[in-house]
Amino acid sequence: MADADLETGQVEAAYSANVLGNALEGAFALGQDLLWEVGINRIPVVNVENACTSGSTALHLACLAIAAGAAEIVAVVGVERMSTRKGAIPAGALTPEGAVGFLTPAVFAVRARAYLETFGGRAEDLALVAVKNLKNASLNPNAVVQTAVTYEEVLGSPMVADPLTRLQCCPMCDGAAALILGSPAAARRLSSNPVWITASVLASGSYPSILDQARWEMDVRAARRAYELAGIGPADLDLAEVHDAFTISEVLHYEGLGFCGEGEGLSWLLEGHPFPGGGLPVNPSGGLLGRGHPLAATGVAQVVELNRQLRGRAGLGQVPGAKTALAHCMGGDKQADGKSITVMILQG
Amino acid sequence: MADADLETGQVEAAYSANVLGNALEGAFALGQDLLWEVGINRIPVVNVENACTSGSTALHLACLAIAAGAAEIVAVVGVERMSTRKGAIPAGALTPEGAVGFLTPAVFAVRARAYLETFGGRAEDLALVAVKNLKNASLNPNAVVQTAVTYEEVLGSPMVADPLTRLQCCPMCDGAAALILGSPAAARRLSSNPVWITASVLASGSYPSILDQARWEMDVRAARRAYELAGIGPADLDLAEVHDAFTISEVLHYEGLGFCGEGEGLSWLLEGHPFPGGGLPVNPSGGLLGRGHPLAATGVAQVVELNRQLRGRAGLGQVPGAKTALAHCMGGDKQADGKSITVMILQG
Repeated sequence: MADADLETGQVEAAYSANVLGNALEGAFALGQDLLWEVGINRIPVVNVENACTSGSTALHLACLAIAAGAAEIVAVVGVERMSTRKGAIPAGALTPEGAVGFLTPAVFAVRARAYLETFGGRAEDLALVAVKNLKNASLNPNAVVQTAVTYEEVLGSPMVADPLTRLQCCPMCDGAAALILGSPAAARRLSSNPVWITASVLASGSYPSILDQARWEMDVRAARRAYELAGIGPADLDLAEVHDAFTISEVLHYEGLGFCGEGEGLSWLLEGHPFPGGGLPVNPSGGLLGRGHPLAATGVAQVVELNRQLRGRAGLGQVPGAKTALAHCMGGDKQADGKSITVMILQG
Repeated sequence: MADADLETGQVEAAYSANVLGNALEGAFALGQDLLWEVGINRIPVVNVENACTSGSTALHLACLAIAAGAAEIVAVVGVERMSTRKGAIPAGALTPEGAVGFLTPAVFAVRARAYLETFGGRAEDLALVAVKNLKNASLNPNAVVQTAVTYEEVLGSPMVADPLTRLQCCPMCDGAAALILGSPAAARRLSSNPVWITASVLASGSYPSILDQARWEMDVRAARRAYELAGIGPADLDLAEVHDAFTISEVLHYEGLGFCGEGEGLSWLLEGHPFPGGGLPVNPSGGLLGRGHPLAATGVAQVVELNRQLRGRAGLGQVPGAKTALAHCMGGDKQADGKSITVMILQG
C-alpha cells in the first residue's frame, strides 16, 4: 500500500491465497480477517487454494477481474503459517501414498532418477542449483536462507530421498507477500514506472502415465501460451523466477519453459546460463530453495521480487537492465504432471 | 454436462468450491481431482473457499472469467463431504469463541434475541420459516429433508440455542452441485431457453459493532447493487433462494434484501408472502433448512434450483410463470455482519 501510495479505501477487490490455514488452524475465509486487520472491508474478497500455485492463481484472478472491468485497483495477498503450534503437516500422511512414505521429496527423487536415466548426467550436478539459489538468497534480505553454501555442503547435507539431500529440498517457513494490481489507467495514474503483466496463464495437468517423469508437458503447454500472449519468446527474457521446490524441479523447468532443449537442462546449468551474469538468471531472489516456500505466499513473492527487478530496486541481486521476466509456479505433484501451473510474463 | 449437451472437451475453465476438505481430509486442489474423474483436465482450475459463500463465489468468478473473455464455457462445482470418517468439525472448537461454546447456533440465537428485542414479535413465529421450508423440501427430490413438519413439531424439537430448536437449524450433510456457464453467444448456441445471470455481486462485511445484531447492513448494500445492475427492484422478483441457515436468518434476509421494510420480516412471514402461492415465494427448494447445507455446494445448488424454476422444470415445487429470481448466500458469522455475501439476479 505504501509503495503504491494508496489509501485502504481505494482497494476495490482482494484475492487472498492460503493453503494450510484450514487444515492446521481452522481458519476459514482468512482473507477477510487479515484485510480487516489493515483496515480493508466491505469489498469483494475471494479466498483461493490451488496447492503451490495458490498465490499465483490469486494474481491470475485479479488480472481477470480487471480485464472484466469489475475493479480498477485490486489487492493480492498470499499468506502461509507453517510453523503453527499444531506442528505436523497432515496432508501427505492422509493420502495412501503418504501413508507408505511416498511424500513430496520422494516424488521428486523419482523424477530425478527418471530424468537422469532418460537423458544421462550426474546426480551430483543437481547440487549446483542449490549452490546458485542459496547464494542468491544470501543477497536478498527477504529470503529465509541468509548463508551461501558450497557444492560439498549441499551434497554433504543429510540425504532426504536419494539423490535429493536436505539442501536440495526447499525449506518450509512462514511467509506473506502482497501486490497491488491496477487497470492500465490506474497503473499509469499510480506509478511513473509500473510493471506490466503481459501474459497470465493458468492451466492444469494432463495427468499422463506416471511412468513419464522426465518431461513436464504442463510447463511446455502453459509457457507456449504465455509467450504467445506476450508476443515474445524465451530468448527475450532477462530473468525468471521458477518453482524450484527441489533442485531437479528447476532443471526440468529450464526445459519445459523453453530456456534450453529437452534433455539439455543439466548442461545448460553447467554452462552457467542461469547464474547471475549468465544469459538468463533464474531465481535471483533465491527461489524456493533459498527464499523459502511458504506455500501460498510463494507465487505472490515471485512477482514482488520481479517487480523490484524490473524497477531496478533489487539491491545486491539486481539483474542489470532487466526489462522482461517470467514467473512460474506449479502445484500438486500427486500425478506425474502436477495439478496446476501458472506462467506469467512481466515487462518493465 | 448432459443437460447442456456438452462434451468434456468443450469446458474451457472450471471453478471448484469446497470448505472442509482441507481440514477434514487433507484434500488440496480438490477440484482438479474431481474434474479429472469426469474426464476434464489441462484447463484452468481454481479452488475457492469463502466460508458459506464458497459455491456462489466460484460462480461469481466464472462470471468474471467470461466477462474478461478468458473462456466461453465454464464449469462451476460446489462439493462438501461433512459425514467424513473423521467425524468432528474442528473449526468452531479452535476459535476462542468456539472453545467457550459460542458456536454458530448460539451466534444466531443472539441475533434472534436482538431482533425480537429491537422490533418486537414472538420467538415462536420463527418456527413458521422451518414449517414452510421443510414442506417445500418434501416436494424436492434433491432435498435431504423429505418430510414436512408441523409448527408444534418444530417448537417441540430439542432446544439447541434458545430460541432456536433443532428443526430451526439447517442440517449439515454431504452434497454436490454443478453448473455450466456460457458466454451470451455460447449460451444461445447451447440452449433454446438459457437462464441469464443479470447481476452477480460479491461483497464482504463492514464488521460494525457486534452489538448491532438486528440488522444486516451487508445484505442491504449487496442487494441494492444487484438490483441496480439488473435494472430491477425486489417487486420484480418471482421467487428467491436465500441463506436460511437458521429460521431467524431468513427473516433478517427478507428485510436486508428489501422484500419488506426493516422490522417487518416476521409480519411479512405471518401474512404468507414467502409461502408457495404468496407474492414472493422464498426457498421453494427447501432452502438450507430443508434442502440441507453442504457448505460449498449450497451456493451452486441454489442456482441449479433457480435454473430449474426459470425453465419451468421444478416439478411439484414449481412457482408458476417464474421469470425473475434472486439467489443470496452469506458466510462467516464471526463478526456481526458476516464475512462474505453474494447476491445474484437470474432471469429466464
